[in-house]
Amino acid sequence: MFFFEDFAVGRRRELGSFTFTAEAIKTFAAKFDPQRFHLDEEEGRKSLFGGLAASGWHVGSVCMKLLVADSQRQAREALARGEEVATLGPSPGFRELRWIRPVLAGDIISFASEVASLRTSESRPGWGILEARNSGTNQRGEAVFSIVATAFVPRRKSA
Amino acid sequence: MFFFEDFAVGRRRELGSFTFTAEAIKTFAAKFDPQRFHLDEEEGRKSLFGGLAASGWHVGSVCMKLLVADSQRQAREALARGEEVATLGPSPGFRELRWIRPVLAGDIISFASEVASLRTSESRPGWGILEARNSGTNQRGEAVFSIVATAFVPRRKSA
Repeated sequence: MFFFEDFAVGRRRELGSFTFTAEAIKTFAAKFDPQRFHLDEEEGRKSLFGGLAASGWHVGSVCMKLLVADSQRQAREALARGEEVATLGPSPGFRELRWIRPVLAGDIISFASEVASLRTSESRPGWGILEARNSGTNQRGEAVFSIVATAFVPRRKSA
Repeated sequence: MFFFEDFAVGRRRELGSFTFTAEAIKTFAAKFDPQRFHLDEEEGRKSLFGGLAASGWHVGSVCMKLLVADSQRQAREALARGEEVATLGPSPGFRELRWIRPVLAGDIISFASEVASLRTSESRPGWGILEARNSGTNQRGEAVFSIVATAFVPRRKSA
């Protein structure tokens, strides 16, 4: 579980959904992104967003939250089956961070993660590099968020 | 202020610094990125990070917080001088999000923003597109964070 050899390009995980309430939007914005359209309904309506809109960093952070919860769930299940579970390596970065449509108060965003590419690392023997496209879709089926995440994953030791 | 014509490639703003205390790191991680090396000193030391490390989303969110504070400061100063202040448009996305080095408990990260490119929008007359490289540097002068942000900025109406 979580070894390089366990992944396949195209493998998709549904990560679950999150409702961006007005309260959650304002709490995050007050702390990290206090722009008017993230803090006040009326200001949101007057803005290009057309309503109280979540900070893009809030959307990305919620995606991370659901990714971690999904990994932890998978790890628990694998451990319960008696499988070995590898520790994922750090992420050197993400690319193509896109906020495609506004996330407005009340929107329910479903997140998913799909393996986009896999390659072995030349500089770090024993490790592979996985790219995953993580995405968010609203309750109307419209894409709202997308990012390509890169992570180091350990290779299985050959027996 | 904040019109397309007011920006110049290479213009750099120092955004201020933020101390990532263990408490701030754990509070953010508990909510959005509950991986062990973001929650516990000992687990952090045992990890590739070598210490309690801030979530990358925390670092990005703090950069956003300082960007907004800097914009608001500039806007207040411009208004006090009697200048017109434009409202920045939404951001269609960011690219090249890089977590270059871990941000560990106690690190003081200074952020800066530099205009990387400017072009007029073909699809939206009246708007320009600005790209800025936002970056974070630790107390030892080492780069820890970098992202290229894109934003729509209104053009001045010709008189």
